[in-house]
Amino acid sequence: MTEAEARERAAAMLTAAGIALTEREREEIEVADFGLGDLEHTGLQLVVYVNTERVCAKELVLFPGQTCPEHRHPPVAGEPGKEETFRCRTGSVLLWVEGHGEIELRPGDQFTIPPDTLHWFSAGDEGTVVSEFSTRSRDESDVFTDPRIVR
Amino acid sequence: MTEAEARERAAAMLTAAGIALTEREREEIEVADFGLGDLEHTGLQLVVYVNTERVCAKELVLFPGQTCPEHRHPPVAGEPGKEETFRCRTGSVLLWVEGHGEIELRPGDQFTIPPDTLHWFSAGDEGTVVSEFSTRSRDESDVFTDPRIVR
Repeated sequence: MTEAEARERAAAMLTAAGIALTEREREEIEVADFGLGDLEHTGLQLVVYVNTERVCAKELVLFPGQTCPEHRHPPVAGEPGKEETFRCRTGSVLLWVEGHGEIELRPGDQFTIPPDTLHWFSAGDEGTVVSEFSTRSRDESDVFTDPRIVR
Repeated sequence: MTEAEARERAAAMLTAAGIALTEREREEIEVADFGLGDLEHTGLQLVVYVNTERVCAKELVLFPGQTCPEHRHPPVAGEPGKEETFRCRTGSVLLWVEGHGEIELRPGDQFTIPPDTLHWFSAGDEGTVVSEFSTRSRDESDVFTDPRIVR
């Protein structure tokens, strides 16, 4: 799967979820392979709606078989690290959170991940669209467990 | 229109927008008439997904003819006041923002309202579903221009 194919497939899943995007947002869907070059298994597609100093909101799209690998959001610049709420919109997602174990989210289910807490997530059989509501996103500060990963 | 009728109508609009809610969320849709007792003209329906110390996310539903009256979110407890991003999901909404004038949002359009800035918004002919991504919501601190309003 190429990056362009992933972008097109993610756009189709967002449309199927009833989520309207501008033409520019569709073209700029972010495809993250975390530097591993194995998008089928380790990958994530994102639409970032807003990311100010205080608030961030995104749609996350994962295809069946895709996992976003284990990571945490450490304190940055005197702030306690990114706090994330995941809300499942379509399909299902298996979320693992340090201290909580595995949590399956289906449409309408949500979970808030505290700052600086290890977590990873994998799409269920139909893939998933997940809304993320959080504090400021600073991808470059994320700490991944797998040392090969570059975000 | 009673509060129960408004809740049912809002739930139907959210379903039509493809937004999955839990049974509890449907039952607990907040109906705000701002103390004016004229829900047809001055009113707002809300589903609050999350409201932590740092982040808040909601769906707002307005029926055709409904307006959320002019208000601002002042600084509270040493913080600069609530920052809100409105993203239109269905229908259309006319948003007025101090210093920006009128902005029409259609599905996929969004606007970020700075802290402590006067604004109001009215649904278009089909009504609207709007996602709100913001810092912590403290409704009791909101300052409305109309002195009769109680939130």
